[in-house]
Amino acid sequence: MKIAILGTGAGARCHADKLTSLGHEVTVGTRDPQTTLARTETDPMGTAPFAEFLSGRKGLTLLPFAEATAGAELIINGIDGANAVAALTAIGNDVLAGKVLIDYAVPYRYNPDIPRPWPTPWGVMPALDPVDSDSLSEQIQRALPDAKVVKAFVTQEQETVVDPAEFGGDHTIFVAGDHPEAKQAATDLLRSYGWTDILDLGALYAARGMEMYAHMHCAIGLALGGRFGVKVIR
Amino acid sequence: MKIAILGTGAGARCHADKLTSLGHEVTVGTRDPQTTLARTETDPMGTAPFAEFLSGRKGLTLLPFAEATAGAELIINGIDGANAVAALTAIGNDVLAGKVLIDYAVPYRYNPDIPRPWPTPWGVMPALDPVDSDSLSEQIQRALPDAKVVKAFVTQEQETVVDPAEFGGDHTIFVAGDHPEAKQAATDLLRSYGWTDILDLGALYAARGMEMYAHMHCAIGLALGGRFGVKVIR
Repeated sequence: MKIAILGTGAGARCHADKLTSLGHEVTVGTRDPQTTLARTETDPMGTAPFAEFLSGRKGLTLLPFAEATAGAELIINGIDGANAVAALTAIGNDVLAGKVLIDYAVPYRYNPDIPRPWPTPWGVMPALDPVDSDSLSEQIQRALPDAKVVKAFVTQEQETVVDPAEFGGDHTIFVAGDHPEAKQAATDLLRSYGWTDILDLGALYAARGMEMYAHMHCAIGLALGGRFGVKVIR
Repeated sequence: MKIAILGTGAGARCHADKLTSLGHEVTVGTRDPQTTLARTETDPMGTAPFAEFLSGRKGLTLLPFAEATAGAELIINGIDGANAVAALTAIGNDVLAGKVLIDYAVPYRYNPDIPRPWPTPWGVMPALDPVDSDSLSEQIQRALPDAKVVKAFVTQEQETVVDPAEFGGDHTIFVAGDHPEAKQAATDLLRSYGWTDILDLGALYAARGMEMYAHMHCAIGLALGGRFGVKVIR
């Protein structure tokens, strides 16, 4: 399948590698490829410059957002939460019309007035905006009414999303959205990643809970000092 | 142990019965016992009038908040989130000084302008206030600086908190707080309830995530049509 991943962060790279290994044709979207490739610094989270990542991966193509999206059958949104709505809106509802858009972004708003002690990035959580009465995924769906938005992946580190076997494989991941075929596409993708317990949380407003779970996820991760799985037992 | 449960809702009743069965001396606190006992209606969630509950339980005593608290070694806060800070503040920092206060309330603000379709109570979630940058537990700790507040129980239905064996017993519950001895007291109580996997999430600000998880918890519960356990797999 032709799949576009929007965003060049650590999470996007996990999906790029996994999807390539599964035989998909993957393009990575960024605002301006020249700027992305010109970066030479490793970020505070330890993510290497994108050019370094790309150099060893001949199957991957880096394109501007709209070009990456235009040729794709399925789109994965990993644009950071503060910029996602503006960047996706700029691509245009016509380009995204009818396409499945899997959104895994968290709407973090980094406030420079709140100290965030490194190397424990979530010592104090950044603010979420929107929160509680709206979600980033609902904002995206409203901005792109003809796209088929599905919230998925967001309740886990993307390293775990692409490798559920890391914790024995029998744990749970979630999808939510207003388009059954988009949820099916996300579910199929998750099955191809190795997930067996995929829980449909219903309409897209369940994305509120999935995004707000970021606090709990980070608190558990900090308490354990690393990644973990979550199994819904019923 | 002498334990006070503040609040007369379904959750408080779960703890009253469990603690009584474990041999504790339990008082239930309410704003005004006469008013509580005068209610004759079953609420929309199916919770019977408190007088009916109390009539079959001779070991339980219903007292005004401050009186219930004064005689107790351990206090469990099940006052609804919208009223908890005011009610606890009225009891007084001096009465609560040095005492362990286990808070399991969610700061729901019921907005009559948002339709909440019965009998699916969480079809649209009530708003949370505070949310994201503060938590109800932190508000309570600031209002009662000499109490030892610990957030616990809140990530589960209280029916499950008092009976973890319901889902095989091997699932996870959380505590957070700034007083190690309060977290130990909550942990000991949870062990006596049958919990074996009790995860310390650190300082009281982790209560933000535990309260905000209410959305996710309700979405999962709605998707499954009932209660469930959550196991952190590591």
